[in-house]
Amino acid sequence: MPKEGNCVVAQSGGPTAVINASLLGVIEEAMKQHPIRAIYGAKNGIIGLIDEELYDLRMEDPEELKLLKTTPSSALGSCRYQLKPFEHDEKDYIKIFNVFEAHNIRYFFYIGGNDSMDTADKLTRYAQKIGYDICIIGIPKTIDNDLVMTDHCPGFGSAAKYIATSVMEIARDAVVYPTNIVTIIEVMGRNAGWLAAASALASKDIGAPDLIYLPEVPFSIDKFLDDVRNIHKKTGKITIVVSEGIKDKEGKYIADMSHKFGIDAFGHVQLGGAAFVLENIIREEVEKRVKSIQFNVLQRSAAHIMSKTDVEEAYMVGRMAVRYAVEGACGYMVAIKRDSDNPYSSSTELVELNKVANAEKLVPLAWISHDGNYVKEDALNYIQPLIEGEVEVKYERGLPRYAKLRKIMVPKKVV
Amino acid sequence: MPKEGNCVVAQSGGPTAVINASLLGVIEEAMKQHPIRAIYGAKNGIIGLIDEELYDLRMEDPEELKLLKTTPSSALGSCRYQLKPFEHDEKDYIKIFNVFEAHNIRYFFYIGGNDSMDTADKLTRYAQKIGYDICIIGIPKTIDNDLVMTDHCPGFGSAAKYIATSVMEIARDAVVYPTNIVTIIEVMGRNAGWLAAASALASKDIGAPDLIYLPEVPFSIDKFLDDVRNIHKKTGKITIVVSEGIKDKEGKYIADMSHKFGIDAFGHVQLGGAAFVLENIIREEVEKRVKSIQFNVLQRSAAHIMSKTDVEEAYMVGRMAVRYAVEGACGYMVAIKRDSDNPYSSSTELVELNKVANAEKLVPLAWISHDGNYVKEDALNYIQPLIEGEVEVKYERGLPRYAKLRKIMVPKKVV
Repeated sequence: MPKEGNCVVAQSGGPTAVINASLLGVIEEAMKQHPIRAIYGAKNGIIGLIDEELYDLRMEDPEELKLLKTTPSSALGSCRYQLKPFEHDEKDYIKIFNVFEAHNIRYFFYIGGNDSMDTADKLTRYAQKIGYDICIIGIPKTIDNDLVMTDHCPGFGSAAKYIATSVMEIARDAVVYPTNIVTIIEVMGRNAGWLAAASALASKDIGAPDLIYLPEVPFSIDKFLDDVRNIHKKTGKITIVVSEGIKDKEGKYIADMSHKFGIDAFGHVQLGGAAFVLENIIREEVEKRVKSIQFNVLQRSAAHIMSKTDVEEAYMVGRMAVRYAVEGACGYMVAIKRDSDNPYSSSTELVELNKVANAEKLVPLAWISHDGNYVKEDALNYIQPLIEGEVEVKYERGLPRYAKLRKIMVPKKVV
Repeated sequence: MPKEGNCVVAQSGGPTAVINASLLGVIEEAMKQHPIRAIYGAKNGIIGLIDEELYDLRMEDPEELKLLKTTPSSALGSCRYQLKPFEHDEKDYIKIFNVFEAHNIRYFFYIGGNDSMDTADKLTRYAQKIGYDICIIGIPKTIDNDLVMTDHCPGFGSAAKYIATSVMEIARDAVVYPTNIVTIIEVMGRNAGWLAAASALASKDIGAPDLIYLPEVPFSIDKFLDDVRNIHKKTGKITIVVSEGIKDKEGKYIADMSHKFGIDAFGHVQLGGAAFVLENIIREEVEKRVKSIQFNVLQRSAAHIMSKTDVEEAYMVGRMAVRYAVEGACGYMVAIKRDSDNPYSSSTELVELNKVANAEKLVPLAWISHDGNYVKEDALNYIQPLIEGEVEVKYERGLPRYAKLRKIMVPKKVV
């Protein structure tokens, strides 16, 4: 028999364009499931549970809630807080379970990346240890697409669509003058090059990018200069995409090489990362007309160009998390299973949290060109369906109308 | 009686999201006007005329031409080439008019900013001088919105919409963590702060930006630090927008101050501009968690989020240029007249090229707050209608489908 009680949902890690679609999925499904009474949102992820800062989501205007589906960034706030193992330090756990008990929380849904799955796993094991009856389910989210045990992660498709579109637009801008120009675009991805790989989808437009470098392959400046010079001989207009996390064969981040330019003597100056370093190398060695562009947080927050596939899947994993929980599942993450490529279709399945926590899915080396400077068709076939479909964003007076929540606090009982 | 003969259209200066909508307007109207026979596009603006590099635009696939309406960047290529006064150097003029004569060009439409209006004006006067019968009409384009004699410029509305939307999205991303963060966003605008002003439209979302600095007001680092500290006391999350062209009271660009950080000793290192300088000042003086974001060329090329008002007006000025020309107008730019604010409506009128050439329209000081760190309601009322309306961009497999022209060259007769 399903547990009766209240539920909490929380968001963690870097925001995405669709993390609120998962939140909406949880809220809407929880409203339908009668065993679930109150629906709370924890402010700033797990921190809101520790500090007993909970929003009463049933108090929200239903029209504003609906807008969550197309609203970027984490509406409940986020955190990057890591729980210590409870075997070493129980303090946070005691606080959290006091809050769970005081508010009769029997369901906890945590939307996040692998750190969050680790947190959800620890809480699940702690609950078993102290015999507290609660269902904890993880909901995947990350633009980096680096979670294991799931075909892909909600958030990735929209970021990939933004990146491919923007690379197209930048490349079209770059070719208008009858002069040479090298453009180096840096995208997110510290260890996994999925977002850089996605930029290859842009090539169907006017051929850009020419070169793509992923963190999965050791980066050699000499090889890079050879690659650029080879293209430079044929055309003076070159577009390059690099992951922020490219590293040399010793594992040193290229972004950390700015001392080569005599800059690290001034410790207070923050530089631009890998693309900035490569821009300066190209300027000196190949072509004076060179610029670097960073998409920065826009690649994860540009809800105005979301992938419909991504939004619908983000919403689906949110809904399914609640359904699985009410059916009694506990200690799992809701993963996405690719059922078919053409036409694309997907469904969900449960995977154990501890298999997802602290693991990382990289781009298979077999999907990267032998030269290490592009991706193969296999990578494109995998990414293609995830960026498809356009979402009708609500506009008001020329700008997207994103959700504005009332955020009514639940009276504290513990702290 | 309308002149019979061929026409040339060309694009100049920095691309915009809608400069091809004006091109399409010229092409479609020229196809309707029987005195106009061949329709040529000059490659890379006036350079294509000098070098006799002309595309035959009647050879293009009509379906691809239609896509020009939502295709960013200059489809014909662009240039930043300035004609010398013909009183000093006739060389280029002789070449251009040889090409005009060889191809029986009787109409020339030049889409560009004030430099291009200067070029169009010089060619008009040269034609009069040598008695060559041709109609030359300028078509305004610039995201900077700095042309005089026109209410506003095609290109501005879409850039303004991109900037306001992206500021909303960045600000929503910035507030998710329970930590302080100062974000400094740099937008284009060397002398005119119209684009920075447009970011204020974002404030209806969650209040960002907090501060806006335009090049029209001398920038003081001390005053800036005071402004930021005042807000920092109340909230640790601050979003700031600056024009790339902000200058101190001596007229020195803030962007040129990177030597303050000991960097200009390394002349080969290219730095980020005004936002980069301010980021480092804030890091040292106010808040360690600070980042700068540059929209770079995306603000002028992001056709995926164009303003419908802007696209339709860009198309309208292109069409009207041809109509005016066939009716005998010569030596004019097609300006936009704002007929009504609510509901917004506009029409076109002719203004003399020499009144537009080399002049610059700045944001009126009366529209900037007394503190110099925001814009007043008057500025918002002026900009608001220009960003309104959304354009249905054609998508193919998840990405915008932009026009691909065949670009069939017209056989050379002169060079």
